[in-house]
Amino acid sequence: MEVRDCLVSAPGKAILHGEHAVVHGKVALAVSLNLRTYLQLKARSDGKVCINLPNIDTFVCWELSELKQLTSFLSDKKEEMQRLDAELVKRLREFIGVTNGNLDSSASAILAFLYIYLSLFGSGDMPSLTVSVWSELPTGAGLGSSAAYSVCLAAAFLCATGNIPTPLKEWEQTGRWCQEDLELINSWAFQGEKIIHGNPSGVDNAVGTWGGMLRFLAGKIIPLSRVPLLRILLTNTKVPRSTKVLVARVKDKINKLPSIMIPVLDSVDAISCTCEKVLTEMTCEPITGDHYNILEELIDINQHHLNVIGVGHPSLDTVCQVTAARGLHSKLTGAGGGGCGITLLRPETDSTTLQGTMKDLRDCGYDCWETSIGGPGDSV
Amino acid sequence: MEVRDCLVSAPGKAILHGEHAVVHGKVALAVSLNLRTYLQLKARSDGKVCINLPNIDTFVCWELSELKQLTSFLSDKKEEMQRLDAELVKRLREFIGVTNGNLDSSASAILAFLYIYLSLFGSGDMPSLTVSVWSELPTGAGLGSSAAYSVCLAAAFLCATGNIPTPLKEWEQTGRWCQEDLELINSWAFQGEKIIHGNPSGVDNAVGTWGGMLRFLAGKIIPLSRVPLLRILLTNTKVPRSTKVLVARVKDKINKLPSIMIPVLDSVDAISCTCEKVLTEMTCEPITGDHYNILEELIDINQHHLNVIGVGHPSLDTVCQVTAARGLHSKLTGAGGGGCGITLLRPETDSTTLQGTMKDLRDCGYDCWETSIGGPGDSV
Repeated sequence: MEVRDCLVSAPGKAILHGEHAVVHGKVALAVSLNLRTYLQLKARSDGKVCINLPNIDTFVCWELSELKQLTSFLSDKKEEMQRLDAELVKRLREFIGVTNGNLDSSASAILAFLYIYLSLFGSGDMPSLTVSVWSELPTGAGLGSSAAYSVCLAAAFLCATGNIPTPLKEWEQTGRWCQEDLELINSWAFQGEKIIHGNPSGVDNAVGTWGGMLRFLAGKIIPLSRVPLLRILLTNTKVPRSTKVLVARVKDKINKLPSIMIPVLDSVDAISCTCEKVLTEMTCEPITGDHYNILEELIDINQHHLNVIGVGHPSLDTVCQVTAARGLHSKLTGAGGGGCGITLLRPETDSTTLQGTMKDLRDCGYDCWETSIGGPGDSV
Repeated sequence: MEVRDCLVSAPGKAILHGEHAVVHGKVALAVSLNLRTYLQLKARSDGKVCINLPNIDTFVCWELSELKQLTSFLSDKKEEMQRLDAELVKRLREFIGVTNGNLDSSASAILAFLYIYLSLFGSGDMPSLTVSVWSELPTGAGLGSSAAYSVCLAAAFLCATGNIPTPLKEWEQTGRWCQEDLELINSWAFQGEKIIHGNPSGVDNAVGTWGGMLRFLAGKIIPLSRVPLLRILLTNTKVPRSTKVLVARVKDKINKLPSIMIPVLDSVDAISCTCEKVLTEMTCEPITGDHYNILEELIDINQHHLNVIGVGHPSLDTVCQVTAARGLHSKLTGAGGGGCGITLLRPETDSTTLQGTMKDLRDCGYDCWETSIGGPGDSV
């Protein structure tokens, strides 16, 4: 089988509002982050399957004949997409020699690649190909880099199998898929996420697939039809943190002071809902300074709330102070306790302010990108 | 009539938790601040009545004969203590020449003095005396300096008339009154507060009279029976602010974002109730580090909430940061928007930390006192 070459990309994700509160049954808003992961699929004719992941120094090739031996473990329950094929995962772990313990990013990327490749091609004619992936996203920073990778893998392989069309018309530079195709991409990307993360929420792959903004509530993910594109600064403090430890810390604090903490979660919930309302208004009426004023106010309030629930960090306070000194408003995004912050830029924020702010943040030792949120999802 | 000399004192007040929220029907905790106002009453034999207020550069004497002319305006409805005698106030304003507009602190202090003096002595034998008042409290900083003054005036004059006893036994250094006497002092002090402030809540004079801690909810003031004495730093940023403007700002913010703000007020309410519970526990079980940990946590959370409701100020952020750098926890107290902050000191906070913190705060241009909260009220 020969496949057509293709180039697909998927965005990262940021949590605009509702991180942590979502664990306690409140609304969260996840947005696409226009730092993208790109995947190029190229057909080969030498019977090899290769993967190049320069961001994580991973370059591996296998003979098709080796991979074919693994297909005997494939169960044929394709409709049962909710669950991973545990037998296949086990065999793949043996195949790449990581039978026990946690996977490093290289091993988990390879495992996700092989799982989706074999699941989609294993029962038929297996193509010889090279997949090369590079990304603008830092890994392990809570920005959905693994999901963007899984989404790209799923989209490229589904195109290659013909399960979904290549939506690109000749005269177009980029193309996107219809709703049904996106759902198929998303469900395969979710398999990849499960291999990489164990028990993911499904938000990251949904944002990578649909882009724009998603409302996430009690496990249900609803893509919002229209949102404006917002300019932001994304700052990575590079302070390492454990999401698991932070989630546990919030839970402990709620258990210790429920009468104080539960209203704070309710307020965060209302922030997410108010933000969604304002963003929706911005798509159907002229955008004014007032819209931005409210968005800034919501960011400030939520940042205080996140400090209250115990997931702040001095490095994030610094991000807020440095940007506030230039009239900009920031909050942590994701797990907190370090990690990343987002800063809203107004349409009138000029490049002097922007460059100065980015310099100040970099002088603190942080990485900083000017990008946007709310942009398109997975595209060809 | 000759009066016995006496020396009385009353504490200032600070709001521990619940400022602003109390305006919206939530619990507030007011505590006595051991920066005190002292009043010395000395009998004279030259037929003069004099008042010396060195803190506000006010030194005035009247002939008893002048003051006697004013007593013809006295209504005889002594039982009607809830309302000011409007006719007397009008005549007194004419007498001291401040018939229209707002009163400065000197004029309002004189007016309160004359009102209480004439109300208590005017229908009988009027004594010739000198009242001298000095205070450790800054004026106009929201620390109840005017209430402490009114409480001292009421206590000294009520002692002089014999309406309440001089509680001091010969072998005692200081003495206090019984509940009924305190209620009488408080009601006269409230009259003084009305003259000075127009429409006071009654909290400041109640704290000045009872000391310790008061629970204030929906206009009802309940003195708490026992509270521990807590060491604090009190910092006056000296940033001027208008309580009226700040109260209006909070109201606007609640009206604009009710679903976000009302839960925050609920959380503040729970902070006050939790704090009251912890302080009560501290009086009936051994005080541990955990008690202080929770008190610190409540301070931090409330400071975030006060920022959320819009009454923070960069100067107050600085107080928090400067003290946090030494492991201490601070919040604004009172109206916010500048004004004062309180910092909790732990039993183990050593004098090096203390002196260093005070130096840092003074280097910012702030006034700073080491004092305590929860101490005794009005005493002889």
